[in-house]
Amino acid sequence: MRELGFSVVRVAEFAWSIFEPTEGVFQFGLFDRALELAHKHGLKVIIGTPTATPPAWLTHKYPEVLNVTQEGVTLHHGLRRHYNYSSQKYRELSAIITRRMAEHYKDHPAVIGWQIDNEFNCEINEFYAPADHDAFREWCITKYGTLDKLNEAWGTVFWSQTYSEWEQVCLPRPTPGKKQPNPHQALDEKRFISDNTISYAKVQTDILREVAPHQWLTTNGLFGHLDSHRMQDDLLDFFSYDSYPQFSTIYYDKNEENPLADRGWSQTLSAVRSISPNFCIMEQQAGPGGWVNRMDMPSPKPGQMRLWTYQSIAHGANMVVYFRWRTATFGNEIYWHGINDYHNKLNRRVHEAGRIGAELAQAGSRIASTRYTADIAMLRDYDNEWDGEYDVWHGPFSRQSGKAWFKALTRRHIPSDTVYVRTGTTIEDLKRYKVLIYPHPAIMRDETAALLEQYTREGGIIIFGCRTGYKDERGHCYMRPFPGAAAALTGISVEEFTMVKGTREAVSMKWSGGKEALTGADSFNDVLLPESDSVVVVAHYASDYYAGKPAVTKNKFGEGEAWYFGAVFNESSAGQIIERLGLVSPAADWLALPEQVELSIRQDASGPLHFLLNYSEQPALITLSEEKTDLLTGKKLSGTVDLEGYGVLVLS
Amino acid sequence: MRELGFSVVRVAEFAWSIFEPTEGVFQFGLFDRALELAHKHGLKVIIGTPTATPPAWLTHKYPEVLNVTQEGVTLHHGLRRHYNYSSQKYRELSAIITRRMAEHYKDHPAVIGWQIDNEFNCEINEFYAPADHDAFREWCITKYGTLDKLNEAWGTVFWSQTYSEWEQVCLPRPTPGKKQPNPHQALDEKRFISDNTISYAKVQTDILREVAPHQWLTTNGLFGHLDSHRMQDDLLDFFSYDSYPQFSTIYYDKNEENPLADRGWSQTLSAVRSISPNFCIMEQQAGPGGWVNRMDMPSPKPGQMRLWTYQSIAHGANMVVYFRWRTATFGNEIYWHGINDYHNKLNRRVHEAGRIGAELAQAGSRIASTRYTADIAMLRDYDNEWDGEYDVWHGPFSRQSGKAWFKALTRRHIPSDTVYVRTGTTIEDLKRYKVLIYPHPAIMRDETAALLEQYTREGGIIIFGCRTGYKDERGHCYMRPFPGAAAALTGISVEEFTMVKGTREAVSMKWSGGKEALTGADSFNDVLLPESDSVVVVAHYASDYYAGKPAVTKNKFGEGEAWYFGAVFNESSAGQIIERLGLVSPAADWLALPEQVELSIRQDASGPLHFLLNYSEQPALITLSEEKTDLLTGKKLSGTVDLEGYGVLVLS
Amino acid sequence: MRELGFSVVRVAEFAWSIFEPTEGVFQFGLFDRALELAHKHGLKVIIGTPTATPPAWLTHKYPEVLNVTQEGVTLHHGLRRHYNYSSQKYRELSAIITRRMAEHYKDHPAVIGWQIDNEFNCEINEFYAPADHDAFREWCITKYGTLDKLNEAWGTVFWSQTYSEWEQVCLPRPTPGKKQPNPHQALDEKRFISDNTISYAKVQTDILREVAPHQWLTTNGLFGHLDSHRMQDDLLDFFSYDSYPQFSTIYYDKNEENPLADRGWSQTLSAVRSISPNFCIMEQQAGPGGWVNRMDMPSPKPGQMRLWTYQSIAHGANMVVYFRWRTATFGNEIYWHGINDYHNKLNRRVHEAGRIGAELAQAGSRIASTRYTADIAMLRDYDNEWDGEYDVWHGPFSRQSGKAWFKALTRRHIPSDTVYVRTGTTIEDLKRYKVLIYPHPAIMRDETAALLEQYTREGGIIIFGCRTGYKDERGHCYMRPFPGAAAALTGISVEEFTMVKGTREAVSMKWSGGKEALTGADSFNDVLLPESDSVVVVAHYASDYYAGKPAVTKNKFGEGEAWYFGAVFNESSAGQIIERLGLVSPAADWLALPEQVELSIRQDASGPLHFLLNYSEQPALITLSEEKTDLLTGKKLSGTVDLEGYGVLVLS
Repeated sequence: MRELGFSVVRVAEFAWSIFEPTEGVFQFGLFDRALELAHKHGLKVIIGTPTATPPAWLTHKYPEVLNVTQEGVTLHHGLRRHYNYSSQKYRELSAIITRRMAEHYKDHPAVIGWQIDNEFNCEINEFYAPADHDAFREWCITKYGTLDKLNEAWGTVFWSQTYSEWEQVCLPRPTPGKKQPNPHQALDEKRFISDNTISYAKVQTDILREVAPHQWLTTNGLFGHLDSHRMQDDLLDFFSYDSYPQFSTIYYDKNEENPLADRGWSQTLSAVRSISPNFCIMEQQAGPGGWVNRMDMPSPKPGQMRLWTYQSIAHGANMVVYFRWRTATFGNEIYWHGINDYHNKLNRRVHEAGRIGAELAQAGSRIASTRYTADIAMLRDYDNEWDGEYDVWHGPFSRQSGKAWFKALTRRHIPSDTVYVRTGTTIEDLKRYKVLIYPHPAIMRDETAALLEQYTREGGIIIFGCRTGYKDERGHCYMRPFPGAAAALTGISVEEFTMVKGTREAVSMKWSGGKEALTGADSFNDVLLPESDSVVVVAHYASDYYAGKPAVTKNKFGEGEAWYFGAVFNESSAGQIIERLGLVSPAADWLALPEQVELSIRQDASGPLHFLLNYSEQPALITLSEEKTDLLTGKKLSGTVDLEGYGVLVLS
Repeated sequence: MRELGFSVVRVAEFAWSIFEPTEGVFQFGLFDRALELAHKHGLKVIIGTPTATPPAWLTHKYPEVLNVTQEGVTLHHGLRRHYNYSSQKYRELSAIITRRMAEHYKDHPAVIGWQIDNEFNCEINEFYAPADHDAFREWCITKYGTLDKLNEAWGTVFWSQTYSEWEQVCLPRPTPGKKQPNPHQALDEKRFISDNTISYAKVQTDILREVAPHQWLTTNGLFGHLDSHRMQDDLLDFFSYDSYPQFSTIYYDKNEENPLADRGWSQTLSAVRSISPNFCIMEQQAGPGGWVNRMDMPSPKPGQMRLWTYQSIAHGANMVVYFRWRTATFGNEIYWHGINDYHNKLNRRVHEAGRIGAELAQAGSRIASTRYTADIAMLRDYDNEWDGEYDVWHGPFSRQSGKAWFKALTRRHIPSDTVYVRTGTTIEDLKRYKVLIYPHPAIMRDETAALLEQYTREGGIIIFGCRTGYKDERGHCYMRPFPGAAAALTGISVEEFTMVKGTREAVSMKWSGGKEALTGADSFNDVLLPESDSVVVVAHYASDYYAGKPAVTKNKFGEGEAWYFGAVFNESSAGQIIERLGLVSPAADWLALPEQVELSIRQDASGPLHFLLNYSEQPALITLSEEKTDLLTGKKLSGTVDLEGYGVLVLS
Repeated sequence: MRELGFSVVRVAEFAWSIFEPTEGVFQFGLFDRALELAHKHGLKVIIGTPTATPPAWLTHKYPEVLNVTQEGVTLHHGLRRHYNYSSQKYRELSAIITRRMAEHYKDHPAVIGWQIDNEFNCEINEFYAPADHDAFREWCITKYGTLDKLNEAWGTVFWSQTYSEWEQVCLPRPTPGKKQPNPHQALDEKRFISDNTISYAKVQTDILREVAPHQWLTTNGLFGHLDSHRMQDDLLDFFSYDSYPQFSTIYYDKNEENPLADRGWSQTLSAVRSISPNFCIMEQQAGPGGWVNRMDMPSPKPGQMRLWTYQSIAHGANMVVYFRWRTATFGNEIYWHGINDYHNKLNRRVHEAGRIGAELAQAGSRIASTRYTADIAMLRDYDNEWDGEYDVWHGPFSRQSGKAWFKALTRRHIPSDTVYVRTGTTIEDLKRYKVLIYPHPAIMRDETAALLEQYTREGGIIIFGCRTGYKDERGHCYMRPFPGAAAALTGISVEEFTMVKGTREAVSMKWSGGKEALTGADSFNDVLLPESDSVVVVAHYASDYYAGKPAVTKNKFGEGEAWYFGAVFNESSAGQIIERLGLVSPAADWLALPEQVELSIRQDASGPLHFLLNYSEQPALITLSEEKTDLLTGKKLSGTVDLEGYGVLVLS
């Protein structure tokens, strides 16, 4: 490992049965030997607490710790993550193993930090053990205080769902027409799961902060029903993510036009960056992957492992750990290949890892001092993501538009950030950006609307799509014309609206005052009605019975402007708006890039680093009108440069 | 509402937890105030008994009332219709709330009638609670008396399924190869569910007849496993249906040629009319519909709400209630939009409702005195519909042919009725029609065959498709050549037969004595053998090893004739038969209509009303060779008339 | 039956409730009468033990005998095969009914043999009753002796799955991410099910051998999770199979090129022949088939029933029993049509059966003395079939390549055998063949490798595909370069490898030293590296980053040669290898056949019989350059002969 330039390893994240082979019996010999060896070779160690995999003795003796499906099927020992967060017994046993490990390794010279559990809410992010129903009821009591308030928040008067005793309150249970719960209860369920996950993690972080205060804490993965931002703020030093861009070769939509494939991971990395500006990749793909029966991926092609490593770094990673050193010869992840094959002989991935190691030995410290920088941000929030999982009247639109905007921006070489709108979000958080895109925030709290008004009033540009602002934080519709909370900011109302699906034909738009068509009014159409003189209609519908009515409006609001786009975005319509706004690459005046190359910029006081990432197997012709130096090779570059297939440049 | 011309409202159908917030505590204040207001403005009120939604206190205290899946998963409070019909406790509690409501409102001047429960057997029409297994066993004891008779009826000697004690008899339970029950037991299961539903409804209607004898009774919806005809005959004053033609925009078969879309609801309305000749639409679609996560429909286009209202009326509705006045801002039906939006301001649907209200204020009483009239009927029956749910050797054919015939008739402007063949069906019921089409009555009782023979003997024309008459009422095959019970009537036997599916290529037919091809011998082929001199072979198979053998026969039988079509019908073959029979529109001599316009005729002693319904967004050119008056506008029309897109005329 | 030439009937295989209507009460009258009648007409009788269908009294009184799904749903009385093999109570009751029947019929002059149960492991081949978990645990204790050995074999150290007490060991249970068990446990599960099935069958065969030693024993069907070879060796006199080639009309892959359809059953019959060289067809398709709701097949065309009968005979059947005499008029198999229809009148299938009966009356004894003969064999084994059910990194490849090779061989009129590689397989078993094809034996035990080396050393040719030899018998990967156990024999290693799926484009190959393309490197690519001078690279990859690297190699090994084909085979690549090897039809010098005709050869001391089977509806032109006699008609044939559609010749 040292020869390849490695400096950090992660261990022990699934090793509970090794540390505690039977209840209350602890042994550390195996990992003591491993850590000694690491220390001897100058490798630093991250230890994972092993709570993602409770041992057989534990689940056999305490079956109440197991997770249960909504239908009542208990999920047993045999894979991983088969426990629930609510069981007091599991919290006790997790505390014991964490404390023992912390005490044992708190002063180990090789140990630099801890990974809490492994991939919270991976595999499964719903929990229906009896302990979960009880914990949810307690959570509701804490949140609402009285049943009257809960009944009002969940709108239980509809369909006679009113609760008259607390003991009647449970997590959603099977009903006729499966998976058809009360929508407000379903939204609270996700909030509860997130709170409960964080509360479970806190059991461990509290112990580690107390026992091992000099070692840092993180956890890995970005999964559902979890407010990772709050977990980061409350519990962790920085966030970690597991990056497997090769999934794009097997999970994809055949009908998607012009897909981003592995480049799409850059959007996810933007979300990770919104949690902690510099982060760790705890698992960077290092070979073909797959379980025995699924996720069976092709091998990355030569250069892709390096490309994806720099993709992570370009987007903010300051530590990258590969998964994994050597491929296991047994178990469910027998085909999740590491850098080394089963036979441990040299292969091309080992060589590629060595190349990266050598480059970062040179360039790493310069890069580590910088931060990703962008003028444009996409807004997201947990309320809408969780509500939109169930609610098909806005959730799918946000996913569709988010991808469309990212494609339109990255293919124009315009870096963008992701910002989560949260309770603590400040005007300063937003004012760092010239333009904000908030595609379909169906739920919009009054405070959020006020914050966005302030941003716009002070000169910002904000862009909304259809279905904006019509719900409150409980998921109730406001009893006012759409766009509800965003009415003042946008200056319009929605005269009428329709789903565009099934046999309903798509409608076209065109820019006002011109013949140019705006590509497609996808998926949902809000027919707009200007309510203020400050509103300019920038596009009209061009077909169907609302032809000629406003489709896109722009409201001058203070020093800024608020756009309302009456449909769901696609890459083309997002691109046309980008062009209308005059947005261009920050390096446009000295750098010409083909579409296949991503531009990311990290910056510090001594200036910017321009990461150029070629996602194509084919070479890319780029043109520099100023001479630049490639940080990875030290070469000076100017004029027309041929960037190899899957090649990377870091220009400074 | 008064301004829009409304005269009736429905309330309370899901309000159990308001009337009885905890067990035995009743309160009527909310609805008393609402009814007083309605009365003050001259609105009549239909009250729904709220038993479709047992409250939380009820299901929590008496979990035995809940429905259970076949696999044993209890279906809880959270949606609606989570109860079973067999629980004595639920019948008791339903009786109590019904009696209390009846006593409270029996003399209310605004209350004209009651809706029992809401949409029986919607969402779920299978029931496997312990009480259901017990009730089914009792039902079997009543039906069969002895186990020997049950064993014979269910053919239990096959696969060693013989029952030796009554306690072994249950509803179908999970077996290896899921959903693979004994077919005769499965048929009886559906008969039991229907009987059990009616028996449950009777608990309520008995109370209402006793307590509120001056108010009428109905219930709404047309769902599976329920003999709505018997329920109507035994319990109700008239039947009600909930009509949502916009479902056609999202639930459709992409491969269907020339689909009817919303016009297809006319066929369903024909079935409703067979239950009660004049009926109520308790829920007429009044906006975009949908639950949070499904049934998300586009908005009806301008004119469609009016079109569908007249579609209902043309087919026999004498009362139309829209669903719903105002859109709910919370709960699972948050997107089931009413006439009014969340904000309650005027919108185009309110205007459209007002237009209809004004028209019906003029024309309503004239229309109400008439009845739908047709010379042709499609026959159906519950035996085959319930057996055909499971039996793919005839069930899918009936659905396919029924649709094909309706398309062929309606597009030729030939009105048709639906008639359910039941125990009480009389020769007079049938002799009202010149032609009967009974596509694939696999189950044919001897009495049914005798009735159809009498109909034909006395001059009627009857048309059968393949798979006719081979099963008895238990679902056993007769031990005689096909078409079994229909052999005498059709004068043929089936020499051999085959499914036409998978890699088996479709076979063609041609008319005898000509070169004209008959379009397609779809899905199943009976190769026919005339057994009587009175049989004429009207078409032959034209390919495969049975080329040249009879495919379609016509048997002169008494004064009439019986056709046997050896395959499943499609629109084209049904159309060719219609033309051979010389059937034309009853208005053919003075009215020329394009295909897109439906013609329905309601009639009374003072003459016919011709409803012309344009289902196209495009205008329709119609030609009248006689002058007629449009009842809705009072305008006189003749010559070439341009009927607007989605337009309606009622000519008299 | 006698008139049609029948000599054997099978009865009673589902008649438990007739023999033992309530526990301990036995009656034989019905079958006594039937057997007397059979005997009177000279028909011999096979009796089925009725244990596939435990009666209602049994499962009601002893519910512990029922099978249970992995999720815990008990599978009840109502279909068939609803029991588990582990219940001691069921074994007791099975022993009692078997002994009673054996004692009753052991000396009956008509009874020649017994069928044990019916279609073991049909419908369902997984078992999760409590008794099954217990029996599996005992099986593990017997196999491994200590938990340490079990933990090692199952690789439980991964994901903390280590067992510390035997009571923690169960069959795989539901986990997060359903059907995702430990792969080594999952392999042992299948071995256990097979052992358990055989152990259950032995309860019956032990009794029958003891009580009725002069009657032979067989069982029917070829289903999953059962080592039929071991069952045959340990318990039976010969094996029986149920042959329904018409399934090919409804279960097929629309995307398959050039499918074999009903001819594909010849491959399955080869597998049956590997169990017992001459066998019985206990159910030969005799009409349209299907259950009430599925398997609804078209009718066989005229001639197909005869064709399929000779297909069975050509491949080794010495007894053929049709399913079934007459179609049942009730029950789940109401549409599984027999030779006779419900009405029992003559039909074309009766005539066809009579023709076959007459032919076999002439030719049967000559045919019965012969055995199928082939120079080429496809190797298979249970380890890989069972492991490959779960493991998509080799299982699907074996199925794909097995079919490809069979197609390539049969269309070139080259007969082939199937040989299962088992513990007892000897060098003599293999040396009967010139060429062995073993497409993707991922699991290869050291003993197997040694046997194959001996075969090759002594002059045999063996052909492997990708993914050969990398796993040991536990399913662990060897810690050596691929192809692991086959490294010495093949003389190569695998430099790298990749799945070819999803967006990964397929790669081409070409033959070395020529421009001819080898069709497609399908599904998975091993990039090869010769490790020995004896290796010749016969084909290279022709595209992607490994273009030019070895794709197919041939290793001179002793007197023979070992081929390694780096991908999954398709019909075309298999065909090109066949041509390179110079393999041709054994009758090539006197017989020219079109592709649509299969050639099978049965032989004895007096010479070969050439079965020519025309699977096409169209006639086939065949050319004989020597005069031959058709055994079925006695006609002499030479020159150009027109073989009718679906026609059969047996030339001698």
